[in-house]
Amino acid sequence: MDLDITTDRGVEVDPQILSTNVDDILEDDEIDIVIELVGGYQPALSFILKAMKNGKHVVTANKALLAKHWQELMDCAHRNGVRICFEASVGGGIPLLEPLNEGLAANNIETVYGIINGTANYILTKMADLGLDFDVVLKEAQLMGYAEQDPTFDVEGHDTAQKLIILSILSFGIYVEEEKFHVEGITRITPDDIKFAREELDSVVKLLAIAQLDDGELEIRVHPTLVPQDHLLASVNDVFNAVYMVGDVVGPVLMYGQGAGMMPTASAVVADCMNIIQDMKRTVDYGPATSRVKKVKDMSRVECKYYLRITALDEPGVLHSISGILSDLDISIESVSQKKSEDDEAVPIFMVTHHALEKNIQEAMKIINKLDFVKKETVLIRLLE
Amino acid sequence: MDLDITTDRGVEVDPQILSTNVDDILEDDEIDIVIELVGGYQPALSFILKAMKNGKHVVTANKALLAKHWQELMDCAHRNGVRICFEASVGGGIPLLEPLNEGLAANNIETVYGIINGTANYILTKMADLGLDFDVVLKEAQLMGYAEQDPTFDVEGHDTAQKLIILSILSFGIYVEEEKFHVEGITRITPDDIKFAREELDSVVKLLAIAQLDDGELEIRVHPTLVPQDHLLASVNDVFNAVYMVGDVVGPVLMYGQGAGMMPTASAVVADCMNIIQDMKRTVDYGPATSRVKKVKDMSRVECKYYLRITALDEPGVLHSISGILSDLDISIESVSQKKSEDDEAVPIFMVTHHALEKNIQEAMKIINKLDFVKKETVLIRLLE
Repeated sequence: MDLDITTDRGVEVDPQILSTNVDDILEDDEIDIVIELVGGYQPALSFILKAMKNGKHVVTANKALLAKHWQELMDCAHRNGVRICFEASVGGGIPLLEPLNEGLAANNIETVYGIINGTANYILTKMADLGLDFDVVLKEAQLMGYAEQDPTFDVEGHDTAQKLIILSILSFGIYVEEEKFHVEGITRITPDDIKFAREELDSVVKLLAIAQLDDGELEIRVHPTLVPQDHLLASVNDVFNAVYMVGDVVGPVLMYGQGAGMMPTASAVVADCMNIIQDMKRTVDYGPATSRVKKVKDMSRVECKYYLRITALDEPGVLHSISGILSDLDISIESVSQKKSEDDEAVPIFMVTHHALEKNIQEAMKIINKLDFVKKETVLIRLLE
Repeated sequence: MDLDITTDRGVEVDPQILSTNVDDILEDDEIDIVIELVGGYQPALSFILKAMKNGKHVVTANKALLAKHWQELMDCAHRNGVRICFEASVGGGIPLLEPLNEGLAANNIETVYGIINGTANYILTKMADLGLDFDVVLKEAQLMGYAEQDPTFDVEGHDTAQKLIILSILSFGIYVEEEKFHVEGITRITPDDIKFAREELDSVVKLLAIAQLDDGELEIRVHPTLVPQDHLLASVNDVFNAVYMVGDVVGPVLMYGQGAGMMPTASAVVADCMNIIQDMKRTVDYGPATSRVKKVKDMSRVECKYYLRITALDEPGVLHSISGILSDLDISIESVSQKKSEDDEAVPIFMVTHHALEKNIQEAMKIINKLDFVKKETVLIRLLE
């Protein structure tokens, strides 16, 4: 069913089975499984709910809908004794959610790190390979069809966040809505950051989805992250996706592949259908039966190392002032490196801190950004360890 | 059940359910699933066959048994309407076989490359990191418990071959016994090879299991391979395993994790049990219903690029002779580099060929190794592209 059933899609389909009226499917008793690939919230939500109420299993790739209406969708599936499968919603064609939910069922998942947005990863990869600015690479990505005309959703981390919501349910048994966690995109990253990361920290910049359990508290966040070169995630380039998980029994596991696109999505959708067909009566629960998450940790209490790029005038006393501010907030500096100014313009000061509290670093940023000799907003990237 | 049920295993088990007599399990009607972790061919085979004949599902990690008695085991399972599950047999705790068999079921698998022996990978990684000889690293690995006292099975590629047999069935629907394909270990690799690979070819040496379909012919082989640094498999280090697969719909997919050990194995075994418990009546077939493999390609007809390390005296005419032999066999040289001799001893000549036929390269090796000025057996490593 589609509103447009006349355009040639390059696939031969018996015109008799095509319809512009969704009820021809949702009300057809001979149909057991409905595949929803409409996308977006509405009318997709209504279609899926109606399908399930009419006793049909649903296969969908709609991460936005799942991330927003998770409980309603699951409740409806349970009430009607049907399944809703969504392997394609995270990591595209990578067999990921089913292995996480079933293959790793013996494990308490401790950590999930994901590169799960192909557009952002493509842009960061090209910026690193070619030393180009974000805007330039974004334009090229749009021309290549790797980025939407309005790329906000991908480059600001929202798509990553929606997928992380789904991963958190399956890994930790807890639903956290996007408004409740830190989501930050890649638009402020420059080739300078990437170069410093490579040369001084032996790391690469990746947009990571992070969910990890720390003594009963769930850290959940999306932001650019410095990934050490020898971490497998550092080698995940271009439009590829990967999810790195640590289970308490299995240890680290990584799944890698194409996170989007017509064919990878089709691969996952067909697998879901076959899975349902294997046993139409089986119900599937997602995530652990009881969650070990006692609470979601507030971002202000997250601790890590930070990379800072402060753009300041090259004057005496500048470093002294900045280090004083950091020191007052309990932030100690691991390394600092300042470019010499050649023409009295502001120059970047690159800093890496020891472990510090997010609350303190944010407070420090506020103070530093207001200093007279600081000429641009400071860029902050968290380090993965 | 074990022959020894008195040793403290660090886990509390009701002594009432322990037995030294296997029939207490195999003939107990209340037992639905038998987990076989005895290893080896016998009595494991008899135990499993009897369990299945008595209507019990079987979960096993026994790759050797599966690789040797595949058809007998599957026939017995089908005849008795039970399942035999073996997720732990390849890639340990990595959810790998189930995702390959079901998650990628929409795909025709085109390529499988695996690093699936932790011992060999650990040794190659340490040789590369520390510049040490095979023997030295092997001894350390034995002390650390990463290598057996008799390491033949791991370092000569037989363990890798057995796992590849299982992967080939699931990927291509064809059973090839080990005697029918090329299996070569890592004992002849030296730090010189690894150094040249890194510095001149930007590659690392890995013991790869390779199965790929080329126009209806299956290439299946196990040997040390030069993997380009930017291939994800090049970053799979220490005892870790990874399998890289290409499906015609999904494209490339990689699964990574710990390939052996008590806990990773347990993770996979428990997952198999849960899988069976979900639906005791479901039968599972492994691999595609119809195989696209028309024949297994003879190794002599495999084509690739080769790295050669020829150890020869530093005399006039040596390179001329060798290049003549190669040229006569239709092998052209891409690059050559010769160390200067400092003390009249034989020196290594490093060569990389363009694409050549295995048959021709083997013929060339025979001739070259017999030359008067060639002082050691030539080392040959195939390149992955």
